[in-house]
Amino acid sequence: MIRQLFDRVSCTYTYIVLDLKTRECVVIDPVMEQFDRDETLMKQWGYTPKYTLETHTHADHISAAKLFREKYKSKIAVSSYGLAKGADIYLKENDSISTEQISIKVLHTPGHTEESLCFLYKETIFTGDTLLIRGCGRTDFQGGSADDLYESVHSKIFTLPSETKIFPGHDYQGRLWSSVGEEKKHNPRLTQTKEQFKELMQNLGLSYPEKMNVAVPANSLFPDT
Amino acid sequence: MIRQLFDRVSCTYTYIVLDLKTRECVVIDPVMEQFDRDETLMKQWGYTPKYTLETHTHADHISAAKLFREKYKSKIAVSSYGLAKGADIYLKENDSISTEQISIKVLHTPGHTEESLCFLYKETIFTGDTLLIRGCGRTDFQGGSADDLYESVHSKIFTLPSETKIFPGHDYQGRLWSSVGEEKKHNPRLTQTKEQFKELMQNLGLSYPEKMNVAVPANSLFPDT
Repeated sequence: MIRQLFDRVSCTYTYIVLDLKTRECVVIDPVMEQFDRDETLMKQWGYTPKYTLETHTHADHISAAKLFREKYKSKIAVSSYGLAKGADIYLKENDSISTEQISIKVLHTPGHTEESLCFLYKETIFTGDTLLIRGCGRTDFQGGSADDLYESVHSKIFTLPSETKIFPGHDYQGRLWSSVGEEKKHNPRLTQTKEQFKELMQNLGLSYPEKMNVAVPANSLFPDT
Repeated sequence: MIRQLFDRVSCTYTYIVLDLKTRECVVIDPVMEQFDRDETLMKQWGYTPKYTLETHTHADHISAAKLFREKYKSKIAVSSYGLAKGADIYLKENDSISTEQISIKVLHTPGHTEESLCFLYKETIFTGDTLLIRGCGRTDFQGGSADDLYESVHSKIFTLPSETKIFPGHDYQGRLWSSVGEEKKHNPRLTQTKEQFKELMQNLGLSYPEKMNVAVPANSLFPDT
């Protein structure tokens, strides 16, 4: 079972995947400021966090991974394609994070950032900022590349069955999930040609995330506790 | 199928129940400012709104019901226990709102406001502000009554099977849904005795909703178009 949670400040979605048998859970993209909320819910549900997974080195919020490890000895799993230090597990393409009844497969999907990952669990993909609902993450820092993002989405996400549910890393309009079929048809960016997409991504004119200078270093260093 | 949507300003959840066969849908508690978002999604999914349902006369946001009726001739369904004028359907206890494959049953659950309704659809209940996740709506205006709310929740919601999913009218902490079993066990207000609950509700010391003087009249009058 998957529980989805929302952080109103950064518009980040956190996901908690529950192993109904062992009562362990896997937390994807937890937000530091929401640690108390998430911990309270887990306790009430009767679950213990076993792993925290990061889709990428977030620039807009600080991960709660360290807080979970400190309190629950959960393992911090991050991309092996980036610069993060001090994590417990470095994830590569085709790796799996597993409990007795959960198996989450790792896809390396560079583009938003060079180390970005997606996580596939049953008929659901957690896309981080690689693919958003009717959008995608920006590609102008942290090794981002519009070329790579287009390839990642088209070769690793859009090749999944249409009914695959998409749980994104963010949504700024209050939409909760989508599907591969929906995005293949209605994503205004990824339905364009690669050349059109690259031009579009070059001209977004976005300012840098407010928390970037704090969040990226904090999310890159998980010192041993 | 149910799609849940969130309005970040008022923290309101809107629900769209889809009839996969007729491609009609029923919209519960739509928010005026989110009309464009909701309409775009429905068009992309290939659905036409047939009914809009209001759990109660909201004091914190203006309903989009009139916009849907103007554009799609959808029927506005509201509580028969309140003061709303100009709606198309006035809902009473045990009524149903139906399309070919959807049947939504009406429960009258006074307490947050005197006319408040909950809607039961398969193993899901849309509780409006009668029952929130680990909380409940305030009971200090619009005919609200802590006594009534306690009775409504205990006699009409907590008597449903534990696994019944609760989709609330709001959440201010980014939690999306709950279940009857969870709330019976963990709701800090509704697990108390009625006397304790009444005392607690009397002492919340909340200020009036900012939009109340605009929203309540707007949500009470649905003039013929």
